[in-house]
This record gives sequence, C-alpha cells and structure tokens, in this order.
Amino acid sequence: METSGGRRVGRPRAVQRPDSGLTPRAELLTAAAELFTTRGYAATTTRAVAERAGMRQASMYHYVSGKEELLAELLESTVTPSLTYARRLLADDTRAAEERLRELCRTDVELLCGGSHNLGGLYLLPEVRTERFAGFHAVRGELKDAYRQLIAATVSGGALAKSALDLRTDLVFGLIEGVILVHRSDPDRSVSEFARATADAALRIVGD
Amino acid sequence: METSGGRRVGRPRAVQRPDSGLTPRAELLTAAAELFTTRGYAATTTRAVAERAGMRQASMYHYVSGKEELLAELLESTVTPSLTYARRLLADDTRAAEERLRELCRTDVELLCGGSHNLGGLYLLPEVRTERFAGFHAVRGELKDAYRQLIAATVSGGALAKSALDLRTDLVFGLIEGVILVHRSDPDRSVSEFARATADAALRIVGD
Repeated sequence: METSGGRRVGRPRAVQRPDSGLTPRAELLTAAAELFTTRGYAATTTRAVAERAGMRQASMYHYVSGKEELLAELLESTVTPSLTYARRLLADDTRAAEERLRELCRTDVELLCGGSHNLGGLYLLPEVRTERFAGFHAVRGELKDAYRQLIAATVSGGALAKSALDLRTDLVFGLIEGVILVHRSDPDRSVSEFARATADAALRIVGD
Repeated sequence: METSGGRRVGRPRAVQRPDSGLTPRAELLTAAAELFTTRGYAATTTRAVAERAGMRQASMYHYVSGKEELLAELLESTVTPSLTYARRLLADDTRAAEERLRELCRTDVELLCGGSHNLGGLYLLPEVRTERFAGFHAVRGELKDAYRQLIAATVSGGALAKSALDLRTDLVFGLIEGVILVHRSDPDRSVSEFARATADAALRIVGD
C-alpha cells in the first residue's frame, strides 16, 4: 500500500539504519552472519536478512543471488585468510617448519574464535554438504593440505608414512576446528592465550 | 478425507513399514536422527518425522511432545553412555589415571564416530542454546568435568594450577569433540584406529 504519485529519492529502505559505511553487499553479509548464527540458517528468510541490512528484499537481489551465496561467502571467509597465510608460511623456508606450523595454528584459532559471530558453527549445516558449497570445501581442503605439508616438513612428521601423516593431519586439523565447539564455554578467556595453548597442543600432537 | 463408517484396527499408519521390532518412540528417534542430520533440524517437520516412522502426525504426540524433545534426547544419547563409563573409570583407583583417561578418550571417539548418523553435528544448532536443552548441557558439562578430574589425577595434570587445568581440559575435550568435524573426511578409515590415535594425541596434550 504505497502513496501514489510521490517519487522516492535514493534506494528504498524498509528500515532506516545509521550509515555504517559498509557497502550494501557487506551490510547483507553482516546481517546474514548475525541471523544465521542466532536464529539458524533454515529459519532465516531472505526478507529478514534484507530488512536487517536496511533494504527491501527486492533490492537485495541486486547484490547477491540469495541466501546460499551469503552462506557460501561467510563460510569461505572463515578459511580464506588462513589459507593465504599458510601459503606464505609454506614458501618461507628460512624458518623451521615447527615454528611455522605453530604460527599457522595460532593464527587460525584466533580467526575462528575472534569474529563477532561463531561462523564455524555453520560448518555442520546439512545444506553445506551440497554441490553449491564446493568452493568452500575446496578452500578448506587446500588449507588442510597446507597443514599436511607443514607437518610433513617437521622432524617428527617427516618420519611418518603417508597414512600416518594423514591421520596426524586430521588430528591437528580436528583440534584446530574443535575450538569452534569449545571456545563458547569460557568466553572471558583471552583468545590469544587460548590460541597459543592450542598451537602448543598441536605441536605436541605432531611430535612423539 | 477419510472413509466414514469404517473402524480402523490398530494404530493408524500413514506409511507401511516392515516391522522393525523398535518401540514407536525408538522408531521416532531413528527417523528424527536421519532427517535432522540429512535435511537439517529447522527444515524437518514433525509430520515428516512421523511419516518416516510409519505413523500419522497425531499419533506421534502419544509418544513425544514434539521435535524439541526428539532433538534433546538424541543429543543426550551422544553424551550419556560416555558419562556412565567416565564415572566407572573415575571410581576405579586400581589403575593409573593416564590409562583410564586414554580409555575414556578412545571410547568417546568411537561413540561419536560410530553411530549411523553424525548426531554430533547437531551440537552447533542455534536452537540448542535455549533453556529447553539445559539437560543436554548439564550432562555434557558433567562429562567434561569427569575429563577434568581424570586429567587432574595424572602426573602432568596434577602439577597444573586451576586455570591451566581448565585450559588443558578444554583442549582435550575440544580434540575429542573435534572428531565430529573431521571424521567425515575419511569415512573408510577404521573408527577404532582413529579412536586409538585420538586417545594417544589427547595424552600427548596432557603430558608436557
């Protein structure tokens, strides 16, 4: 029910928001992160995301194709910075592999625990198993492979047969991603302290 | 649209199923486990659960109060057997704490990986944070406390201050629950081998 005759100025907004300085796409991602992690992915409508981002549902489709694209991009955002950093560490052969592995673990835990929403919690959605999220799985697989290469370059890891190396990699990667399940239990603890302790634990898993 | 006049014999069944030998409640739990983990919790209707279990939606409410009760019971089923076993291990002071901790880790991983559905994947649902699931959180907290007590009884763990002990406990518990996130990556690997390796890794985290 709109007043006829009048002309709107600018992008129509269902809800007025203070100017966040974000692009519309970034506003949509922020809104989706909040709603997916608090209400749940399936229970969140594209309309709710659009409204939280201060725009109408129809306008949203100028910026994203829908809910799945938002979820895929949020998931990739939990992995891509770690992968970029892992590649830099892999290329740096001036430092011991143990030291570089420790730094990757620490950085990865800080990334997983440090955001304002527990995006890692979205990893286990059944929807994420579908083909639409192949990009996320590929990037996550590359990150795991970077862990494997760094572990293989350590003194203990270099002595392992392939299947033992794979197992060791899964355990270290499981420890790191496991922080998604535990860090909520003590939200007052310093993330950097927790990240350092997790990295120490990862190195203990690798060594024997 | 039912045929009037006729009288039904027995419990009305929307879908005929071969007799599974399960109680109706157990059939509902089995159906819910499958649907929640494959379609997602929010996307699963009580009607779909009832039909999968071979009964009408209305009949379902003779056995359970609804979807939340099914989810709560499935979640508790991932923790309760481990807690029972942990209590037995805690009481058994004829064996070294290290050995008992190793056995708890191994058993817990076998339980988390061994079921036909990845129920651990339901831990991260936003719905699970609500008061309705306080029972699950309480049992999970008790299991974590049993880990803490066993770790404190080890030689290395006994030397730790309270905050360091809490951190070590979170890391071990995170490693164990982290298997939820990794064991799907290599479904052909033997669960018992993976469980043994995870228990070894947990002991390495505890020792220093």
